[in-house]
Amino acid sequence: MSKYWSKMAKRTDPYVPGEQIDQKGIIKLNTNENPYPPSPHAVDAIRLEMDRKLQQYPSPTMDSLRDTIAGYHQLRKENVFVGNGSDEVLGFSFMAFFDQDKRIRFPAVTYSFYPAYAKLFGIPYEEIPLARDFSLPIEAFFQSDGGVIFPNPNAPTSVYLELEYVIEVIENNPDQVVIIDEAYIDFAGASAATLIDAYDNLLVVQTMSKSRSLAGMRIGFALGNSDLIKGLTRVKNSFNSYTMDRLAIAGAEAAINDHTYFLQTTKKIIQTREQVISRLKENGFTVLPSQANFVFASHYKLKANWLYERLKENHVLVRYFDKNPIKNYLRITIGTDEDMDTFFKRLNTVIAEQTVSF
Amino acid sequence: MSKYWSKMAKRTDPYVPGEQIDQKGIIKLNTNENPYPPSPHAVDAIRLEMDRKLQQYPSPTMDSLRDTIAGYHQLRKENVFVGNGSDEVLGFSFMAFFDQDKRIRFPAVTYSFYPAYAKLFGIPYEEIPLARDFSLPIEAFFQSDGGVIFPNPNAPTSVYLELEYVIEVIENNPDQVVIIDEAYIDFAGASAATLIDAYDNLLVVQTMSKSRSLAGMRIGFALGNSDLIKGLTRVKNSFNSYTMDRLAIAGAEAAINDHTYFLQTTKKIIQTREQVISRLKENGFTVLPSQANFVFASHYKLKANWLYERLKENHVLVRYFDKNPIKNYLRITIGTDEDMDTFFKRLNTVIAEQTVSF
Repeated sequence: MSKYWSKMAKRTDPYVPGEQIDQKGIIKLNTNENPYPPSPHAVDAIRLEMDRKLQQYPSPTMDSLRDTIAGYHQLRKENVFVGNGSDEVLGFSFMAFFDQDKRIRFPAVTYSFYPAYAKLFGIPYEEIPLARDFSLPIEAFFQSDGGVIFPNPNAPTSVYLELEYVIEVIENNPDQVVIIDEAYIDFAGASAATLIDAYDNLLVVQTMSKSRSLAGMRIGFALGNSDLIKGLTRVKNSFNSYTMDRLAIAGAEAAINDHTYFLQTTKKIIQTREQVISRLKENGFTVLPSQANFVFASHYKLKANWLYERLKENHVLVRYFDKNPIKNYLRITIGTDEDMDTFFKRLNTVIAEQTVSF
Repeated sequence: MSKYWSKMAKRTDPYVPGEQIDQKGIIKLNTNENPYPPSPHAVDAIRLEMDRKLQQYPSPTMDSLRDTIAGYHQLRKENVFVGNGSDEVLGFSFMAFFDQDKRIRFPAVTYSFYPAYAKLFGIPYEEIPLARDFSLPIEAFFQSDGGVIFPNPNAPTSVYLELEYVIEVIENNPDQVVIIDEAYIDFAGASAATLIDAYDNLLVVQTMSKSRSLAGMRIGFALGNSDLIKGLTRVKNSFNSYTMDRLAIAGAEAAINDHTYFLQTTKKIIQTREQVISRLKENGFTVLPSQANFVFASHYKLKANWLYERLKENHVLVRYFDKNPIKNYLRITIGTDEDMDTFFKRLNTVIAEQTVSF
């Protein structure tokens, strides 16, 4: 701690992202990236934008991109806020809708960035334990003091909550904002985006880092009532007028417009996921019912931490969280079929070694 | 105001950026962009990076870019923080070094984002009036309660403060952070970056939006003692792990490395600036001594607001601030020689019309 740090810098407990190792031969299944490249139309749009004026600021209002996202979700531009990855959009949401004197609620097992935002901004929070089957106990989110946030599907569990239950949480928090963090929704069931017109207190946050293959370009967005979007915009315009660069804006718009490619790649990932789940079960794993581009799995005998380390030595990166009640689980991103074949080959080597050493 | 907004969203008073009009035939001299394109090497580096994996997250630590910036300034990577434009870097700096119970100081005429950050984060502030010649009265910044921030050269005045006076401000605030916002330093005299090793409480913020022609790519950075950089990094990692996308990182690094192009374009802008100052004076303007890529000018007879409006009708955008004591000044960005010829032609038309109408 330095004497020059503010109270905010001192009290915060930063998020630790998954390892970003760029090494040939490594199978990277640890940060839920899409194994397929972005839409060729997105790449073309970025190339085209490069020939325009990179020396000039981007649009501060990003109207064209917001129009495109609104069209896709059958909403209006006024219902759309865009930003530098859904992490930034979530950060602005904590600033715009949560307060230092009212406790918010989120699941005890969830995206570990939520407590980091809360500590940074001094927002008190209550962590709601999951049910034994890792589902969300929805009644525990009713009548919150300061608001609610949870991912759907939840991370790192991959478990999806049906929309009828999401609605119950929204309806039972009429005076608070309920944020549904839908980073993985395109691999799951219905999105709460269809509820925007019905509920003034609902904010839906999505990202183009997963289903749109643009993690490297940092694009996220929020959908909500125009008053919520105005609140987010006030905060953003008090922090950074231009949060997305020209190339990210151009790529994002083209990615949304290429619906065919999006359907193709998400469908393929879902197919691979179902095969991976079967194969993991054959190899002695319990796997939670996944509706994401990753699975959450626990071996009946081998410790998750040990598996994580041994897989890493064998050039396979998965994610491990040293925290109860998930310390015996691994989060494994769905790669290409080829990636997953290599994963299982190396996993089998690791498991075989262990059997020999008994 | 919505009942769903936080206290933060309610109390803030957002910054209003200059108009971003993308229209053929318009001469855009209102947001201090560089009239020249970025270094061809930067453009090549972006193209090259596009062929790598846009579906994977960028580096969260941005080591390679930080190394490059450090090398340029004869510092170490641990002295460098990079972010999504210097606006974001300044926002994180307000969070990391200023507090809600200690009053900070900045000039009364300055970058109008400072009060926006302060209101957003509830940081009390004192606005120090400029001297009659628009210079900074440095003693008024000594022994501040909570810290000091000012641009050097100042904006929108374009006036530069010699380093010996900057040092006095730093030395007379030993227990507070002094932030020197050097957005325009490459068009001016010596940078305070050379003082980093000598003063633990100094943070220097720079941008690639002006002298590096990359406004459209959103790249800024801070230089300081490693403890200050750690504080900034803690705050950033509690808000957004990946603030710069892959293409911005690649372009920034190559732009720093192309020193020849940088010297060429900044030298050219300074030459044009000196000619513009002479011509403005010939046309009845008082012009402050500029060390930026813009000038701040007041006509002896014609009101600045009227000139701003009439120039806009004639497809020339400059910036006007309706605020004392600068309400009779225009801020005019330095374009190419050709841009400035057109500017003077249209300015002369406007002035001639006015004379006729008398």
